[in-house]
Amino acid sequence: MIVIMKVGATEDEITAVQKRIEEQGLRTHLSQGEERTIIGLIGDKTVIVEDNLMRMPGVERITPVSRPFKLASRDFHPENTVININGHHIGGNQVIITAGPCAVESREQFLEIAACVREAGAHFLRGGAFKPRTSPYSFQGMGEEGLQIMAEAREETGMAIVTEIMAPEQLPLIEKYADVLQIGTRNMQNYALLKAVGKSHLPVLLKRGLMSTIEELLMSAEYILAHGNSNVMLCERGIRTFETYTRNTLDINAVPVLKELTHLPVIVDPSHATGKWSLVQSASLAGVAAGADGLIIEVHHHPEKAMSDGAQSLKPDRFVELMNQLRRVAAAVDRTV
Amino acid sequence: MIVIMKVGATEDEITAVQKRIEEQGLRTHLSQGEERTIIGLIGDKTVIVEDNLMRMPGVERITPVSRPFKLASRDFHPENTVININGHHIGGNQVIITAGPCAVESREQFLEIAACVREAGAHFLRGGAFKPRTSPYSFQGMGEEGLQIMAEAREETGMAIVTEIMAPEQLPLIEKYADVLQIGTRNMQNYALLKAVGKSHLPVLLKRGLMSTIEELLMSAEYILAHGNSNVMLCERGIRTFETYTRNTLDINAVPVLKELTHLPVIVDPSHATGKWSLVQSASLAGVAAGADGLIIEVHHHPEKAMSDGAQSLKPDRFVELMNQLRRVAAAVDRTV
Amino acid sequence: MIVIMKVGATEDEITAVQKRIEEQGLRTHLSQGEERTIIGLIGDKTVIVEDNLMRMPGVERITPVSRPFKLASRDFHPENTVININGHHIGGNQVIITAGPCAVESREQFLEIAACVREAGAHFLRGGAFKPRTSPYSFQGMGEEGLQIMAEAREETGMAIVTEIMAPEQLPLIEKYADVLQIGTRNMQNYALLKAVGKSHLPVLLKRGLMSTIEELLMSAEYILAHGNSNVMLCERGIRTFETYTRNTLDINAVPVLKELTHLPVIVDPSHATGKWSLVQSASLAGVAAGADGLIIEVHHHPEKAMSDGAQSLKPDRFVELMNQLRRVAAAVDRTV
Amino acid sequence: MIVIMKVGATEDEITAVQKRIEEQGLRTHLSQGEERTIIGLIGDKTVIVEDNLMRMPGVERITPVSRPFKLASRDFHPENTVININGHHIGGNQVIITAGPCAVESREQFLEIAACVREAGAHFLRGGAFKPRTSPYSFQGMGEEGLQIMAEAREETGMAIVTEIMAPEQLPLIEKYADVLQIGTRNMQNYALLKAVGKSHLPVLLKRGLMSTIEELLMSAEYILAHGNSNVMLCERGIRTFETYTRNTLDINAVPVLKELTHLPVIVDPSHATGKWSLVQSASLAGVAAGADGLIIEVHHHPEKAMSDGAQSLKPDRFVELMNQLRRVAAAVDRTV
Repeated sequence: MIVIMKVGATEDEITAVQKRIEEQGLRTHLSQGEERTIIGLIGDKTVIVEDNLMRMPGVERITPVSRPFKLASRDFHPENTVININGHHIGGNQVIITAGPCAVESREQFLEIAACVREAGAHFLRGGAFKPRTSPYSFQGMGEEGLQIMAEAREETGMAIVTEIMAPEQLPLIEKYADVLQIGTRNMQNYALLKAVGKSHLPVLLKRGLMSTIEELLMSAEYILAHGNSNVMLCERGIRTFETYTRNTLDINAVPVLKELTHLPVIVDPSHATGKWSLVQSASLAGVAAGADGLIIEVHHHPEKAMSDGAQSLKPDRFVELMNQLRRVAAAVDRTV
Repeated sequence: MIVIMKVGATEDEITAVQKRIEEQGLRTHLSQGEERTIIGLIGDKTVIVEDNLMRMPGVERITPVSRPFKLASRDFHPENTVININGHHIGGNQVIITAGPCAVESREQFLEIAACVREAGAHFLRGGAFKPRTSPYSFQGMGEEGLQIMAEAREETGMAIVTEIMAPEQLPLIEKYADVLQIGTRNMQNYALLKAVGKSHLPVLLKRGLMSTIEELLMSAEYILAHGNSNVMLCERGIRTFETYTRNTLDINAVPVLKELTHLPVIVDPSHATGKWSLVQSASLAGVAAGADGLIIEVHHHPEKAMSDGAQSLKPDRFVELMNQLRRVAAAVDRTV
Repeated sequence: MIVIMKVGATEDEITAVQKRIEEQGLRTHLSQGEERTIIGLIGDKTVIVEDNLMRMPGVERITPVSRPFKLASRDFHPENTVININGHHIGGNQVIITAGPCAVESREQFLEIAACVREAGAHFLRGGAFKPRTSPYSFQGMGEEGLQIMAEAREETGMAIVTEIMAPEQLPLIEKYADVLQIGTRNMQNYALLKAVGKSHLPVLLKRGLMSTIEELLMSAEYILAHGNSNVMLCERGIRTFETYTRNTLDINAVPVLKELTHLPVIVDPSHATGKWSLVQSASLAGVAAGADGLIIEVHHHPEKAMSDGAQSLKPDRFVELMNQLRRVAAAVDRTV
Repeated sequence: MIVIMKVGATEDEITAVQKRIEEQGLRTHLSQGEERTIIGLIGDKTVIVEDNLMRMPGVERITPVSRPFKLASRDFHPENTVININGHHIGGNQVIITAGPCAVESREQFLEIAACVREAGAHFLRGGAFKPRTSPYSFQGMGEEGLQIMAEAREETGMAIVTEIMAPEQLPLIEKYADVLQIGTRNMQNYALLKAVGKSHLPVLLKRGLMSTIEELLMSAEYILAHGNSNVMLCERGIRTFETYTRNTLDINAVPVLKELTHLPVIVDPSHATGKWSLVQSASLAGVAAGADGLIIEVHHHPEKAMSDGAQSLKPDRFVELMNQLRRVAAAVDRTV
């Protein structure tokens, strides 16, 4: 952390800042420029409240030097975290494909789609039993019945189940049925929820908030890691920008950035990142070409009758075609699907 | 709702869309343009899943006609909602000022600040016992002990207490001590929480998500209203934009827009909207000039020692000065403080 | 400028960076933290190309200490710049109101509106002869004929003329007729144009790009100042955000921020910042309450027939009402209109 | 175009709107919903000024049905535009690679880099002679001398030259030396410049404004097309968002969206879209996987000494490696490089 003093800050002001920092057990290092003085802090910065220094006379601003995430940082954990789920390894050479409908709507619907995506080569099965919806008047999910249907599909297909958790009190129930806990974009900074899944034995798929920076995503991962769960996958699912033609803007840069900053696996969600089925193939191929460790894709056999996200769901035949394309692009970057 | 067909959509495609809509009990109305056909829907659109129509062949896009919020809309409730809290009326002629520290840090700290802001003329007292923090390593609030301190301050000052709720399970506890439930910006779309406070007898101060649209804010209010709680105040607290000089961008336009769209009271939070104490006065005066029904302002007697938000907290003497300015600007727009 | 080295940067890497900097005539200052080393630069940083240091092995990032604008900075010019136009002083105690239609459409239209706004108490007259339009098929302005009409209105009303310049080659023509050169939002970083107006004797009203940061606005002002024209007014006219209910988002924070950072006058354009006439009054009052030195407002006597910007133009009677309100709010912050 | 009336609009208000539209030679089509009336317009909407209808009593908002770009639209020109430059076809099966330094800095520098990128398999050569720089104190380019050096490199390598034009008056000069005119991101809505290049015989590479929508990009292309130049390539080069870790956010969705909406070739600039050389490979591969017709990449043999954009420039050996990867990914999507 560096404190940048104002042009014209007095010696007394500078000394007062140094004293304040040293009182908290850190050392300081002064650098006198031509216009300004800067003060470096050496030692454990977690005892410092940045805002407090900001308020001292003569201080212009504070600049961090270290990154605020530690457990999630590649600086201190250079090797990739590889998570073994059901015999599939996420974060290794293989690109893991999760597919399925937005929501479980009925036993028939879910089992049929499960069979389709398995046949096409998907590794994991997605489906929502508790659905966060912008409108209180929209379908909110089947709840426990939905979870039971997913468990049945797992029996039939052998595929691991990825499903969303919306509140801490749902944890015991969902742990009974699911293999991966998904934190949705609107809950990325629901800290009560992050702490709860931090204590679970299940891996977590943490979706980036549609309004969150890469650093905030890593700080939310840090919450889960700091509470004891080291199996966290990060999911880029599109961010909100001024562009309105697509539902969200896929931040494809986030894939290589995350691979640089963290050892955790990186997943791309091309369905939410585009909002339109005709764009899903391009976004999926781009994700794999950019280095993603996995994709999570919405598939529905009757998207024109889906209770949610029909516009962005692929039909089974398109999904088969996409899987074929994915295998080719993955091979071109020395990976498998 | 209007369905806009593609250039060159066939008659069969148009008929199929009409049929699908009419099967769900609505009527349709066809308009043949020179390039495109558009189909209007007449009847109860809540039975329609937009995405399903989007997926039909020949459909280019769907445009809503009605707004998705009903209970929150001024269209169907033209008079202002006025909420009586402790004898103060929010949404009426008086501009209601809530002040206090970001977090309760100790009994001494909170009682001293409470006395200061009361003396200066504030109406309600703010303070956090449960704090949402980006880092798991930051101070997370005093919990129930903090609530007890706030209750004591209420006894001493007679001021109503505004405090944040972060999870549904905190509701019974907080209801014992507080007068207004605050939903923070990161929880604006935490639907489990919105449903919970929708069943409370306490009024709710709902903060706009830092990257949520005005319509999404109103949809979150709709959740609370639809679950039975009609005392909702909306709070503009700054949005996230590309500008990084300030912590957030105060969307001052949102004040008159919300007053047009909804009957609910509108509050401005100049502290979070700017992130810097030296900008709080300008933002506060702008809020009142633009038509806000209230302000919520962070005040701390030792901001350089505050455990959070010190950079944006006003010292008591500045707050006194601000209150004096606010009285003058409120009078200039025919209101009182 | 500070160079932050990576965790684990070697001594050789650190020495190489120091050497590179010192070769260019600067001194360096080393600060060894527990995780990282940082290197401060002392001397004339304009000889340094940041990107070059970024590319050296072991460098993580570069942080500026000084601000990149000098002539525009209040650090080196603490007093307000006050610009005298036609006897009115912008940047002083009076709030200067510029009003008029978006575009000059005809002699009758312009003279009538000019008379109205003068009667209501406006100080300057705005009107466009060259119009930047998103569509090549929209009305592009009357050109020189429009300028002549504005000059006639100046004769009749005594009001100074503010008009937009779109290309360097228009300068000699516009200088013949106008009193203030307006740079539009889409041209804020048209450097050929900035250099041209930097050589003019007329004051410049520089509009913030709808996609530009406050710092970029000040850098564009710096271009004009560096080319010899010291009479620059900065105009906040709304920025582009994710919110689509309003045409733009008025960044009201920019007003006090600019007053802190620069000595140049600050103007608010509530018409473009909202895009809707019913919001203009709130935005105008907010602008003055926040500390703006002036407003520029679109007024049209027949907005439902205007060739552009009718939706955001005030009718004359509304403008009269607004002027009355503005006088009251200005008085409440110890200014006059 | 559809006019949506307010809830409670009177019959007189509806009739007045219809009358106004019909007076301008269009037909109207009324649709009476349960809450609101909507009015469809049939005929040539270019005679209508939207804002004027917006101002009529009882009108809530206007929704476009057709897209505002015509010449650029795939609706009316289904086949891809393929541009032949120097025997290379952009918009066909081959992915065209343009490479070179940000700016021409000297004869030696440019000729050396030109030889490198040619050797690696690039098709066109980029280089700036006129540089738009945020700071007036930064290097502004070599001007005509730079153009002459580029022409010499063309002689030696046989590669076409792509260079930026910043003002209409530079056109005759640049046409003497260059093969493709580049419009930079800050000039995407510099209409004087768009009109000028619309009259040139050279193809235009139009970069998307860093905060411009896809529709605005197409409207700027429409300007060029409408002035007679049909050889326009569109370039996605990253947009400005709230994310600050990368210089810009590559909007990879824009690639398939543009391929749907328009027949013009689509180019990706991974250098500006990331701002960091270590991310360029991922972004380039993603661009080709998503369907781009070409890439434009900054290459410098001594990026740590470059006068601009060193941080995002690839060294020649990295560029060779990237070209090899590109060939493999292009093949995986059935294209060549």
